Amino acid sequence: LIRVSILGATGYSGGELIRLLLNHPAVKLHHLTSVSSVGKSIEEIHPLLRGRLSHRFESLNVKKVVRNSDVVFSCFPPTVGMKSTAQLVKAGVKVIDLSADYRLPTGELFKKVYKTTHAAPALLKQAVYGLPELYRKEISASTLVANPGCYATAGILAAIPLLHNHLIDPKSLILDAKSGVSGAGKKLAHNFLFGEVESNFQAYGVTSHRHQPEMETILTCVARKPSQITFTPHLVPMLRGILAVLYATLKKSTRTQDIHALYQKMYQGEPFVRVLPLGQMPQTKNVNNTNYCDIGLVQDERSKRIIVISAIDNLVKGAAGQAIQNMNILFNRSEWEGLQ
Amino acid sequence: LIRVSILGATGYSGGELIRLLLNHPAVKLHHLTSVSSVGKSIEEIHPLLRGRLSHRFESLNVKKVVRNSDVVFSCFPPTVGMKSTAQLVKAGVKVIDLSADYRLPTGELFKKVYKTTHAAPALLKQAVYGLPELYRKEISASTLVANPGCYATAGILAAIPLLHNHLIDPKSLILDAKSGVSGAGKKLAHNFLFGEVESNFQAYGVTSHRHQPEMETILTCVARKPSQITFTPHLVPMLRGILAVLYATLKKSTRTQDIHALYQKMYQGEPFVRVLPLGQMPQTKNVNNTNYCDIGLVQDERSKRIIVISAIDNLVKGAAGQAIQNMNILFNRSEWEGLQ
Amino acid sequence: LIRVSILGATGYSGGELIRLLLNHPAVKLHHLTSVSSVGKSIEEIHPLLRGRLSHRFESLNVKKVVRNSDVVFSCFPPTVGMKSTAQLVKAGVKVIDLSADYRLPTGELFKKVYKTTHAAPALLKQAVYGLPELYRKEISASTLVANPGCYATAGILAAIPLLHNHLIDPKSLILDAKSGVSGAGKKLAHNFLFGEVESNFQAYGVTSHRHQPEMETILTCVARKPSQITFTPHLVPMLRGILAVLYATLKKSTRTQDIHALYQKMYQGEPFVRVLPLGQMPQTKNVNNTNYCDIGLVQDERSKRIIVISAIDNLVKGAAGQAIQNMNILFNRSEWEGLQ
Amino acid sequence: LIRVSILGATGYSGGELIRLLLNHPAVKLHHLTSVSSVGKSIEEIHPLLRGRLSHRFESLNVKKVVRNSDVVFSCFPPTVGMKSTAQLVKAGVKVIDLSADYRLPTGELFKKVYKTTHAAPALLKQAVYGLPELYRKEISASTLVANPGCYATAGILAAIPLLHNHLIDPKSLILDAKSGVSGAGKKLAHNFLFGEVESNFQAYGVTSHRHQPEMETILTCVARKPSQITFTPHLVPMLRGILAVLYATLKKSTRTQDIHALYQKMYQGEPFVRVLPLGQMPQTKNVNNTNYCDIGLVQDERSKRIIVISAIDNLVKGAAGQAIQNMNILFNRSEWEGLQ
Repeated sequence: LIRVSILGATGYSGGELIRLLLNHPAVKLHHLTSVSSVGKSIEEIHPLLRGRLSHRFESLNVKKVVRNSDVVFSCFPPTVGMKSTAQLVKAGVKVIDLSADYRLPTGELFKKVYKTTHAAPALLKQAVYGLPELYRKEISASTLVANPGCYATAGILAAIPLLHNHLIDPKSLILDAKSGVSGAGKKLAHNFLFGEVESNFQAYGVTSHRHQPEMETILTCVARKPSQITFTPHLVPMLRGILAVLYATLKKSTRTQDIHALYQKMYQGEPFVRVLPLGQMPQTKNVNNTNYCDIGLVQDERSKRIIVISAIDNLVKGAAGQAIQNMNILFNRSEWEGLQ
Repeated sequence: LIRVSILGATGYSGGELIRLLLNHPAVKLHHLTSVSSVGKSIEEIHPLLRGRLSHRFESLNVKKVVRNSDVVFSCFPPTVGMKSTAQLVKAGVKVIDLSADYRLPTGELFKKVYKTTHAAPALLKQAVYGLPELYRKEISASTLVANPGCYATAGILAAIPLLHNHLIDPKSLILDAKSGVSGAGKKLAHNFLFGEVESNFQAYGVTSHRHQPEMETILTCVARKPSQITFTPHLVPMLRGILAVLYATLKKSTRTQDIHALYQKMYQGEPFVRVLPLGQMPQTKNVNNTNYCDIGLVQDERSKRIIVISAIDNLVKGAAGQAIQNMNILFNRSEWEGLQ
Repeated sequence: LIRVSILGATGYSGGELIRLLLNHPAVKLHHLTSVSSVGKSIEEIHPLLRGRLSHRFESLNVKKVVRNSDVVFSCFPPTVGMKSTAQLVKAGVKVIDLSADYRLPTGELFKKVYKTTHAAPALLKQAVYGLPELYRKEISASTLVANPGCYATAGILAAIPLLHNHLIDPKSLILDAKSGVSGAGKKLAHNFLFGEVESNFQAYGVTSHRHQPEMETILTCVARKPSQITFTPHLVPMLRGILAVLYATLKKSTRTQDIHALYQKMYQGEPFVRVLPLGQMPQTKNVNNTNYCDIGLVQDERSKRIIVISAIDNLVKGAAGQAIQNMNILFNRSEWEGLQ
Repeated sequence: LIRVSILGATGYSGGELIRLLLNHPAVKLHHLTSVSSVGKSIEEIHPLLRGRLSHRFESLNVKKVVRNSDVVFSCFPPTVGMKSTAQLVKAGVKVIDLSADYRLPTGELFKKVYKTTHAAPALLKQAVYGLPELYRKEISASTLVANPGCYATAGILAAIPLLHNHLIDPKSLILDAKSGVSGAGKKLAHNFLFGEVESNFQAYGVTSHRHQPEMETILTCVARKPSQITFTPHLVPMLRGILAVLYATLKKSTRTQDIHALYQKMYQGEPFVRVLPLGQMPQTKNVNNTNYCDIGLVQDERSKRIIVISAIDNLVKGAAGQAIQNMNILFNRSEWEGLQ
């Protein structure tokens, strides 16, 4: 059995991880830590799990966690777990970090984006970006997996075949993405009250969202050319799900079915990417509570603009599910375990 | 008092028109017609209006309507009211047509978009596109007002200052728009069931929505150059409201505050357009049940892409409210009457 | 013009009051006070009202309010405005108190329910319970109107004809009521986050809600016998609306149509109560954004249980709308003004 | 492996069954039949299942189903599958019937409630009511399990300890129950459109819902005395979940904690009933997507009324999940299989 601990397990991602891992045939949960809820039962914070496990939230004791864990999921908000992650990795425990702390390539970029000096910049090079569709092999050999952001997962999976095959101008990318509210976590803020969200639709963080540099870093690697993406995230009055609409300009006229064939080729064999038939478009409902990413595409031929739409569950493929997929890769298990 | 009749008054737009006109100080409702609900009381179809009026739905008798109406609102689905509109106009009654029948400039384009030969193509030239912010003077002198589509209203109002001032490449336009479900009317179709819409988000009609040629026609007039727009509509799990996000590429570097100033200048004096301060973005909740269009903007300076976001209530500024605004213009009344 | 000030105008009730009073033909808004948002513009707190008024929130200065107001609406949370209300009444200004401070008959009961000593217990006797359907005449002559609670409005209007006509055992009452989330105001609490409310349904405060003694006080007056009500409130995943289902046991067999006739008789002439035809039942959607209370009823004849269902908009007939109806009564105006 | 076929598998219950059974370690799906969608792939009707199975909907061929199935789930609407169920049982196949066809004890009652003569009234006596908490032993030995209605499941589980222990007057029962929209299936009817359901709350079928005689039949068995229940179902603007609030009058004063202890005793050992600690009340969110029934209770001591609240997912414990629990009992497997 893989001995698993989860740090910062009181939020949506943590709750989702516990829920999914309870059904994983090869996992035993050890420490579940929290800053604010030490001593509380799991079911007090995640009442859906009442009767499923008897753990209580503990405060983080790195030594104990090291002793009792083969892998640690770190679910802290940005920057909170930077140090503990470094300590755990140093102690030889594998870490899958669901925060944004180890996703960017350099301490400089990290500081620019997160307004904080990175606590372990050297580790940034060692961290592997945990998108199995791109880095499966590197993940399997790593000790620190930086689990991708939810928007980044949806956006990058939509863009890969275009950039990999050099079909588009890598500076023409626009991502207009829409997310359910759980993407913001359980923050107690006025703008996440039911009365503010229901029957409302709005953009936020336009041109300034932190997943933009994360996406550009990866897309630039895929394209082997500087890529640039204009990113507009939105809040949808629903709990789960991201629909990401990617616009890009083709370098030259290309038939839509040829592009579609490249998508099918790129993702054949991928357990969790479903390229829809031409004429069909993803809906968030069809991926909710699953680890799937559904992808559809269409072309505006007059402008040679290709429009690629992807859908994921932000808490599963966009967070906890992808983290479990990464764990399965790390421990050489079927990627489906715990994710059916 | 202005004598008003409404044709096809059983749908969302019709119900909204009745509701708003009951509070209009200078209006008397005469005939309310329906195809499917003849003889039923208004409150049976619009139970919100119980006790507010004693009318019943009648079948359409053009002569009677002509005799008893100064203005007729036509709320039929596309193509259903083409002929009756022509008859009414010919008989000298002013018509405000909320359907799409008289929005396009030529019979050829109409046929291409709506797959039907137009019943009165000559009238297309006579019809005025009922967007007061562009055509107030023409509306005031017209007999046939083609009330704009909901997406088109949001998209065009977002784009006008950019095109009017020649700031952007008129072929670089992308409109990624999101609408509440009432935009589809009360169609009894599987994909509008609660179980399909709630907690779901999806695009539809990507690159093929009928408001695209409508928008391009008007935008080309504004720009005095061929304009082209890639248009992606979406369905939001809420009843009312459109948020439209417009992307366009600036011809040359322009400071965001200068662009913002042009928006303020263009719309100062407009009763129903609110240009938000820089740094603020519209939300559909803030315009719901009003005739306002809220507009905000931001620039992605690396790509010289300007992002303009507009919000309207699709049933008010996007349909019934704008129709009443047009009626007020036609009858030389304050545009605010019935729209407070 | 009636000079109006609103105390504690940042919440849902306050916002709704401002919105409705802007359309009242005989009202001029003077002071809008707040504790937490002094100096902010109205539109910063109620963005729906952007461009509609130029007031800013002031801190409460009782003297100034007295000088410039004919009537004051007090929208504070329970107990916060007890003293200012007393000061205003003493200074001769009419007060319509939307809080619960002056709804109970004695200081003893108030203390028991609200766990605080009342600041002006003598005034409790002077206050009139602002339910026009019961106390129209008393309201018109009063200086202090205690605007009823939202649940209480729905529950009492459902029960009056049964108790007034001595049809039921006044101790057999059960009220199972369901409310949209705005009933809780804009409280920043974990259980009002979108993620906790959406797709969820729950009871709360079962047998211990503060509207229970309020209802029992009034129902006892109506029945002229001690009345008792078991009260279960619930939270519905929607913003506005209350549906209240009242169960009571008939003293003797009575035909449902006879009971229905008594409801029609009791409420004929009431501008805002609509007794539905037998066979129809209220829905919250049909009263939202209106001051109506819709009432329907049915009998379970085997058990001689009568089931009466009422629906109101908790922010209108359950708060701001009823307050305006009371103001109209106080100033001898049509009860419809501002409420169309 | 248990060979399973599902009849009428296009609706919500059928889709849920397929989804859950795909994760059942001992099940192999054979025939999935449909009336309206013969030949279509499963994913066309249940797009959530895309890529999970390659079956197509077949028309019902009883002989083939008999040959290839150890157990058949029948998910037809009421009365549609009466005959095929009888044929299958006669042919020796075990049937778990999710429709209402075999839940009532006699053909007379069936005719009264469903307005149709029963096709196989003799089988009604043979059928076992599939509520494991009451009839586990009988289920394990049966060939025809009548899977309980969703409301009935929630209502009966709330009432059993009261009636079994003779604590209450069995004629004093009132069930005020609230359900998500999936309870109505995927019916294409005006009142299930998104625009009619969202932000709306209403009662329906008050005193005339078909689950009332179903509940009274079972409750009378439990009480060993004629039981009677006043039943008010409601539609909640959400997809899944039932909250059922049961009111009953205690025969004599009984301490709430003693009643609570009887609930704990009755349900200890039950895998899917969670009796909440006193002071806590169920929420539908905490049981959604699970087979749990959560139960809480409180007393209104003045009236000796006990209020018991239960929550289930209507599609799981109220339909497909309970059906799988019954299958597990029939085949002597852990009741948890497929339901984690």
